[in-house]
Amino acid sequence: MAEQDRLLRQVEFLVEIDKLKGIFRRTWLIDQSRLENDAEHSWHVALLAVLLLEHAAGGDLDVLRVVKMLLIHDLVEIDAGDTYVYDEVGRLDQPQREREAADRIFNMLPGDQAVEFRGLWDEFEARATPEARYAAALDRLQPFLHNYFTQGKAWQEHGVTSDRVLLRTRPIADGAPALWPYVEDLVRDAVEKGYLAK
Amino acid sequence: MAEQDRLLRQVEFLVEIDKLKGIFRRTWLIDQSRLENDAEHSWHVALLAVLLLEHAAGGDLDVLRVVKMLLIHDLVEIDAGDTYVYDEVGRLDQPQREREAADRIFNMLPGDQAVEFRGLWDEFEARATPEARYAAALDRLQPFLHNYFTQGKAWQEHGVTSDRVLLRTRPIADGAPALWPYVEDLVRDAVEKGYLAK
Repeated sequence: MAEQDRLLRQVEFLVEIDKLKGIFRRTWLIDQSRLENDAEHSWHVALLAVLLLEHAAGGDLDVLRVVKMLLIHDLVEIDAGDTYVYDEVGRLDQPQREREAADRIFNMLPGDQAVEFRGLWDEFEARATPEARYAAALDRLQPFLHNYFTQGKAWQEHGVTSDRVLLRTRPIADGAPALWPYVEDLVRDAVEKGYLAK
Repeated sequence: MAEQDRLLRQVEFLVEIDKLKGIFRRTWLIDQSRLENDAEHSWHVALLAVLLLEHAAGGDLDVLRVVKMLLIHDLVEIDAGDTYVYDEVGRLDQPQREREAADRIFNMLPGDQAVEFRGLWDEFEARATPEARYAAALDRLQPFLHNYFTQGKAWQEHGVTSDRVLLRTRPIADGAPALWPYVEDLVRDAVEKGYLAK
């Protein structure tokens, strides 16, 4: 029957997205024991969304929509892989690879949910709403904090400089402006301490 | 100033809870490559909450509160560790160990947020609201699905029988009754296929 079929599709999706736990990022865990995966990152940023809401731009955000966006924002990487933010070549075809992944993965769901989840992902990507801008800010803030609190381990591995970090974290100024001076302070401090090249 | 102090406490908390990524459970990833950790599990169940809402008991749930509960429900295991559900000895002092952990971890936050998060955790533990019951159902459903879709790997490792699985997953009947017949079907099927002892 239709209801049972609906549940089976939902379960197939939940089984499929388990793969997110095997997509590794360039960010180190704060204890430096290993790289972080996308599922852990998604949990962490979703919790940041709840915790840092008072620092968001625009006041009356729909935080549930922000959390939903952050829970699903990296699912496309199951097919498209994690593209390192400072990898200029890999980033060329990233949008197309990720759109194809979104087509496949979200369409596993029952129709109404496929539309809802794809809509959330498109909203996140477009960064045109306060919710999406706040979500994008957190998606930049979390790895930034990891890099800072691991004494710049990933920055040094990839020869990243402070001006590139400031460019990369700039969405924080837009989506969570109250956090921007703090980020600038940490960048300055990271340069001073030698975590990050000028 | 007070505002800066508030942010610093929030960041300290966000750094502290990174440890959840190093707390490993007895559940295998569906590809059987390794055990799952608490942060990944928390991400997965939070997404289940969004996706399976139509199967919850009671209709008009506050799904944001469910998601918040699930994002934080295992933080106490940073101090208290993961107690295996079928470990009868370890479970004896589990409540006390977890309350002490909650005291320490949530009190890292600014006062109002410490109260809110502790309240969410207490609500989850008490299972007295429809939101908490739905959250508990998902917290049982997710590892159950992993065990089924890994052909009972963890069940066999720990000599778990079908009646114990049915007892353990029973909160699903309570918090998400529409899912219960499906769970019963999978348990029957798992026994038939030899994934699970009778």
